[in-house]
Amino acid sequence: MQLSLHTDYALRVLMLLGGTGTQWTIDEIAAWYGISRNHLAKVVQGLQAEGLVETQRGRGGGLRLARDPAEIVIGHVVRRLERFDGFVSCMGAGTDCTISGHCQLKPALAGALEAFLTHLDQFTLADHVSRSDRRVWDRLKGGAGTAAPAAISTPASSA
Amino acid sequence: MQLSLHTDYALRVLMLLGGTGTQWTIDEIAAWYGISRNHLAKVVQGLQAEGLVETQRGRGGGLRLARDPAEIVIGHVVRRLERFDGFVSCMGAGTDCTISGHCQLKPALAGALEAFLTHLDQFTLADHVSRSDRRVWDRLKGGAGTAAPAAISTPASSA
Repeated sequence: MQLSLHTDYALRVLMLLGGTGTQWTIDEIAAWYGISRNHLAKVVQGLQAEGLVETQRGRGGGLRLARDPAEIVIGHVVRRLERFDGFVSCMGAGTDCTISGHCQLKPALAGALEAFLTHLDQFTLADHVSRSDRRVWDRLKGGAGTAAPAAISTPASSA
Repeated sequence: MQLSLHTDYALRVLMLLGGTGTQWTIDEIAAWYGISRNHLAKVVQGLQAEGLVETQRGRGGGLRLARDPAEIVIGHVVRRLERFDGFVSCMGAGTDCTISGHCQLKPALAGALEAFLTHLDQFTLADHVSRSDRRVWDRLKGGAGTAAPAAISTPASSA
């Protein structure tokens, strides 16, 4: 059982933007985590579509959070980005199982998925990037050898 | 996010054995669900190793439950058969993430997985194959065109 790489990367992007409180370009994030730039670009598109990140274009631009970390609920992020409709093969659209319609396991699994998400609803991004961690994040970023973008304190509209 | 096909098939085998209360050969189950016989054979090995099913060898033999359906807890089955160590890429052994050791998301995800399993701990196989469903299962089996093995009422030691 695995979270999709898409959601995994999305959470990493949010952690990085929230943890450092700075702007990052897609290239910087891809290099930082050592992950595919193309895949990351699609992930960022998804995060933008959900109103979670925004882009500042041009020189010195980059990605930043579009909301306060305390407003970004982890369970909500996972609900929006992760696909659950194929959790077991009989849950997918157009799939068929000999015992479909008679199997009582599917509601139990659906309930278990809801319990999984409800647990994550307890946490916001802010819980995962507390102020004490900021120093750690800043050190991490310093060690990555990337240019240090100016810290931003409040999200603003993208250009 | 998907349950592995291994666990998916294992649950289907248990549902079928518990629902019909009869013996099935691997060939019959594979044909019944229209799934790979080779994959199914591995799944059955796993179920045997967990003491959930047993094999009656020889003519008229086949697989049957090794325990009463009321003793087979769905959460336990999923805990034993499903792999969770690679739920996000940083959870796997030998994997590395730039923010490992500083990321506070992993405990939240681990807690969510525990909530998922705890929900499934509420259910036994018996809950999913109640007596009223037996008739449905029997009709389903009749419609499958397979030979109807003799019903067994209590699990016995395998030959």
